[in-house]
Amino acid sequence: MNAGQLTELIKKKKSFLCVGLDTDIQRIPQFLHNGNDPVFEFNKRIIDATLPYAAAYKPNLAFYESLGAKGWESLRKTTEYLRTKEKEIFIIADAKRGDIGNTSAMYARTFFEVFDFDAVTLSPYMGFDTVEPFLQYEDKWVIILGLTSNKSASDFEELPLQNGQRLYEKVLETASQWGTRNQIMFVAGATQAKAFGQIRKIVPGHFLLVPGIGAQGGSLGEVAAQGMNSNCGLLVNSSRGIIYASGGKDFAEKAAEQALSIQQKMKRLLREKGIL
Amino acid sequence: MNAGQLTELIKKKKSFLCVGLDTDIQRIPQFLHNGNDPVFEFNKRIIDATLPYAAAYKPNLAFYESLGAKGWESLRKTTEYLRTKEKEIFIIADAKRGDIGNTSAMYARTFFEVFDFDAVTLSPYMGFDTVEPFLQYEDKWVIILGLTSNKSASDFEELPLQNGQRLYEKVLETASQWGTRNQIMFVAGATQAKAFGQIRKIVPGHFLLVPGIGAQGGSLGEVAAQGMNSNCGLLVNSSRGIIYASGGKDFAEKAAEQALSIQQKMKRLLREKGIL
Repeated sequence: MNAGQLTELIKKKKSFLCVGLDTDIQRIPQFLHNGNDPVFEFNKRIIDATLPYAAAYKPNLAFYESLGAKGWESLRKTTEYLRTKEKEIFIIADAKRGDIGNTSAMYARTFFEVFDFDAVTLSPYMGFDTVEPFLQYEDKWVIILGLTSNKSASDFEELPLQNGQRLYEKVLETASQWGTRNQIMFVAGATQAKAFGQIRKIVPGHFLLVPGIGAQGGSLGEVAAQGMNSNCGLLVNSSRGIIYASGGKDFAEKAAEQALSIQQKMKRLLREKGIL
Repeated sequence: MNAGQLTELIKKKKSFLCVGLDTDIQRIPQFLHNGNDPVFEFNKRIIDATLPYAAAYKPNLAFYESLGAKGWESLRKTTEYLRTKEKEIFIIADAKRGDIGNTSAMYARTFFEVFDFDAVTLSPYMGFDTVEPFLQYEDKWVIILGLTSNKSASDFEELPLQNGQRLYEKVLETASQWGTRNQIMFVAGATQAKAFGQIRKIVPGHFLLVPGIGAQGGSLGEVAAQGMNSNCGLLVNSSRGIIYASGGKDFAEKAAEQALSIQQKMKRLLREKGIL
């Protein structure tokens, strides 16, 4: 999927919502634990309930890896199920990998060949070598950490460099030259909305993946006001606020309600911007 | 294992060699492919052959993940086999993870509870939040990327900051305050030996994990001259140079020869430093 197709998908869904599948076996409703694969069963029902309102899904790999081989099997089934339900849906591996050379090539193979993800999140610390192997795949994306939503983003990401830039600004500037706007997007935390103006100066046309609304306290309205461009240019993620909206038998219903509520706001924001 | 015990292990083995298990299914000798789990069979024989000469092993997770659930099963069997053969061996998950909050806690659970690794490699980009959950585990380690062995380390790691430090120097300085020398070590690439003096000024007492000898061209002698401290303070990794020393039936034998040859050099270096 290229950037134009992603914008078309957002227009079709009237939504730039990404549903984060941070599926924690310890938070899955009790009645699902009787089955053979509670994590997949949970995801399947969340997907069925939220698919009309979402443009993207983002399994968070930490949660699957914590179950070892069984977790990776649940992950495989989840991505396959998504593709079966809707071929043109944007699926992100939230893996935050970052290695080099043949190791990086192996990660690219994993996420783009063994699995059929559209995009992978990557850490930029080791530089271009981390990203290069992923760029060999047509219509696939890397999503590079820019300015993240957590408190300790100030430890390094916001450090002032000798040339006056902050580190994250340099990352955006440098990494945006590594490939096209059809291959590279950046993570920008919703709690950092005050910095979105500056981010948009550096990467006006790129898509941004924005975590941090909901549980982490970021505001969708502010993110859109500061970060939306004429192609939308945003995927805004919500994980816990949707998938754990209820811990009971009605978890999927409540997840749908939450996703619908966000989608309604997004529809308004897309209209205000003249995208719909 | 704490830092003192790691030094004792190095003295016992007369070696600070870490064998990198970058086990690529496409490079495993043909005759092993008949079995049910060629990756584990390969690792088992490499471990049997090299264990007398190594203080540490470092499975590189990219290679296991590329096989999906089956790869994670091979990884589990490999770490369990290592513990069975030798309880006091240092096992590193080369995962280069870097996330925050409940995601980071989940990664810590995976590597320290689901698996029995001693240490995990982490990327520092997102700051302290990435590392904190791992520090809750007694006798377990994080290994934080400092200055890596690849060419594009210059993209960000070596950037000069406003205060005159390079980014990697600031990472070493800041992250060394997050925990004790029994919990935190740093990655310093062997190809960066000219920077080891500077690294040792900032973290004189910390252990360093040093990749980049062998295939990547770094020199063991130079690394030891610049980086060894009175507790050794080094784990030097070799992956491809050992495990792919031969692609034939004699791969384990040749791996042992390579590991022995490195161990002999290390023994000399430890003696010269008065550690043995």
